[in-house]
Amino acid sequence: MSYGQTFKDWRKAAGTSWHDYVNHAFVRGLGDGTLPRRAFLHYLKQDYVFLIHFARAWALAINKAETVEEMRLAAGTVNALINEEMALHVETCAAVGISEQDLFTTEERAENLAYTRYVLDSGHSGDLLDLLAALAPCVMGYGEIGRHLSHKQTSDEFSDWIDTYAAESYQQVCREVGELIDAAVKRRLGHHPLDCPRWPGLCHRFITATKLEAGFFQMGLLV
Amino acid sequence: MSYGQTFKDWRKAAGTSWHDYVNHAFVRGLGDGTLPRRAFLHYLKQDYVFLIHFARAWALAINKAETVEEMRLAAGTVNALINEEMALHVETCAAVGISEQDLFTTEERAENLAYTRYVLDSGHSGDLLDLLAALAPCVMGYGEIGRHLSHKQTSDEFSDWIDTYAAESYQQVCREVGELIDAAVKRRLGHHPLDCPRWPGLCHRFITATKLEAGFFQMGLLV
Amino acid sequence: MSYGQTFKDWRKAAGTSWHDYVNHAFVRGLGDGTLPRRAFLHYLKQDYVFLIHFARAWALAINKAETVEEMRLAAGTVNALINEEMALHVETCAAVGISEQDLFTTEERAENLAYTRYVLDSGHSGDLLDLLAALAPCVMGYGEIGRHLSHKQTSDEFSDWIDTYAAESYQQVCREVGELIDAAVKRRLGHHPLDCPRWPGLCHRFITATKLEAGFFQMGLLV
Amino acid sequence: MSYGQTFKDWRKAAGTSWHDYVNHAFVRGLGDGTLPRRAFLHYLKQDYVFLIHFARAWALAINKAETVEEMRLAAGTVNALINEEMALHVETCAAVGISEQDLFTTEERAENLAYTRYVLDSGHSGDLLDLLAALAPCVMGYGEIGRHLSHKQTSDEFSDWIDTYAAESYQQVCREVGELIDAAVKRRLGHHPLDCPRWPGLCHRFITATKLEAGFFQMGLLV
Repeated sequence: MSYGQTFKDWRKAAGTSWHDYVNHAFVRGLGDGTLPRRAFLHYLKQDYVFLIHFARAWALAINKAETVEEMRLAAGTVNALINEEMALHVETCAAVGISEQDLFTTEERAENLAYTRYVLDSGHSGDLLDLLAALAPCVMGYGEIGRHLSHKQTSDEFSDWIDTYAAESYQQVCREVGELIDAAVKRRLGHHPLDCPRWPGLCHRFITATKLEAGFFQMGLLV
Repeated sequence: MSYGQTFKDWRKAAGTSWHDYVNHAFVRGLGDGTLPRRAFLHYLKQDYVFLIHFARAWALAINKAETVEEMRLAAGTVNALINEEMALHVETCAAVGISEQDLFTTEERAENLAYTRYVLDSGHSGDLLDLLAALAPCVMGYGEIGRHLSHKQTSDEFSDWIDTYAAESYQQVCREVGELIDAAVKRRLGHHPLDCPRWPGLCHRFITATKLEAGFFQMGLLV
Repeated sequence: MSYGQTFKDWRKAAGTSWHDYVNHAFVRGLGDGTLPRRAFLHYLKQDYVFLIHFARAWALAINKAETVEEMRLAAGTVNALINEEMALHVETCAAVGISEQDLFTTEERAENLAYTRYVLDSGHSGDLLDLLAALAPCVMGYGEIGRHLSHKQTSDEFSDWIDTYAAESYQQVCREVGELIDAAVKRRLGHHPLDCPRWPGLCHRFITATKLEAGFFQMGLLV
Repeated sequence: MSYGQTFKDWRKAAGTSWHDYVNHAFVRGLGDGTLPRRAFLHYLKQDYVFLIHFARAWALAINKAETVEEMRLAAGTVNALINEEMALHVETCAAVGISEQDLFTTEERAENLAYTRYVLDSGHSGDLLDLLAALAPCVMGYGEIGRHLSHKQTSDEFSDWIDTYAAESYQQVCREVGELIDAAVKRRLGHHPLDCPRWPGLCHRFITATKLEAGFFQMGLLV
């Protein structure tokens, strides 16, 4: 079930911020089915827009890669995001009469802008590691939430959503991103990353993105 | 007093959003002296961090300039931001015992992240015009607020702040940025910019930045 | 056989520069089999490095896209470049004992740096159109060369190379990129792009990239 | 006369490449007055265009800075480049009837594109250190050449040029950039940068830029 050593270290550094994110009231509402359908739909539309900018950030990772392996993994993730993960959103929304064009033109909430543009700027202002530290909380957090809810869910109301992230294919993405991050850290910081002066800064990026992810769920509750 | 034709058009397109920004309760509190000092200081610290990222965005404008004139004006603005406008913040804060290092390490609020990173991404994803449309609301809005408050203020409590933006030197910056924008529009969209397919998109960037600016003032009220 | 209207216009604007590129001595040597094997291998190694940075530039196009269609097409092209087009290079080189790691660490020639970094900077300094104008000469030129040589070749010496670009799958890529460009032009410049003030600048980018492409072939001749 | 420890290490790593650059035939021709005036003018026009893109790269450094000091120094350098160093070029060229507009629209040679766009891409693909490693050879190399020629020159033919870079004000820029680099290295790599896995990559950037700088002088000889 491991998503790699670096994620483990960053997750630990995030402390309660991580806990507040993966156990957010929005997440609990998905698990016990109490999340209002209206809130879920509102979230899904914002999350579609989120995925567009998240895919743009992964595209930036291709641009900032230094090895063929880094390029291939980042390119694979972009593809999965654009051609697979968005599909659930499009299908679910189509079922209630929301077109993909509607999704694409959804007005972004400030919480959405804050999160995605922060991730993008992490890439533009720093190197691939800065970008990966800001990308990790979403990728791995959803993997953790999916796996957790698939065991604990007391309602089938949102099982489609849960299944997507609990699925072996998504868990595999998390493991591969974990390997990408570990290799990228080793390549740039060496074998003792926690002793590097950049370490606190990378943790800070991970924690900031974690808090913004929690802010995104909070927005999901407020229709 | 004109800040140029394009600004006039964008301001009109923004409608009530513009009004809500330049007449925000925070602004009114600066004019009549009712803004709590604690709120002002909180705002000032966030605004210092804002200016750092705003200067980074103007630096991006140098990078995206296509003429010597565009480069010179953008470089002049970066210089003014880093070496002049930040000075008021540093001085005011120093007077109450907050060091520049404290200012620099202030934890950014999500409202701050949303605004500045949106502006930066406007530059990275588009061309100089996209960036200028996102930069304009802050530059010109503060010019308008400063000029307005200098006439209407009923208290001297925040006259240092008001004087900064009402000052001829700041008004001159607004006029020069207005000329830069008009020239950049003419160079890229021609003589009838409102007929260009890009026009609604540019207005959208201006309006989004205007709303995020209002959100920043709103944050200023909540210590 | 059309690669779209915009390409047709840009190609015309490039005049003899386009002719010099697609009829370069290197190209003729591929067609009549007179290109020394050593030169071909030298070219292939540089072209592998070229493809890496060309893929990075297409990744930047994902980052700068404004519609789902633009994103999907750019993402598809990145994928084709990284997972398909590079394959021929890896296979051909592997057959003569050059590993992919050797390819990846090939020292870039200045002609290679000039071309790929110019394309990347076109994207960073401008918008998606600026980037596409710099990307087009390689994509479409190779399509034109492949199709042309497949009819005129008088030797089978380099038929693997020729077949790659004459293949229906590559021709389809050219047509799709042509549609992407036409749609991107219409979206940003409207129905009369040649009347827009940006038109000469876009032609200039296309022509500069065309000349740099010819310079790349010239380098290929000089082992 | 020191330009800092990191420069000293990078310079050593560059070995003969550094020597070939600062002792290039073009440089010797400036010192003994044998450089044809026509070649000098040709170089000056390309160098003006070079400075534009070099200033854009320093603007990118502002964008990628992590401390107030890094921002201030980078902003000061942008200003010096745009408002001071370009002046010599404009004046010298104006004296022989070449306007600044002519300078700005000079067609860039491939050697120029290769160098400046490589520097810019170093910034976009990496972090501030990657960018600084690519910026350093020009800044410090010209400082070294200026100082050296001011002692050894056997002709006054190009003393204006030599004086510019031998001048205390330019030497001060070199020292400040050296301090900026040393501080940036310490901040990101710690106290033993040569033991960091990134070190060889940074040396590679410095060496590549050094070679491209020599290529630029070579181009200067070929009118």
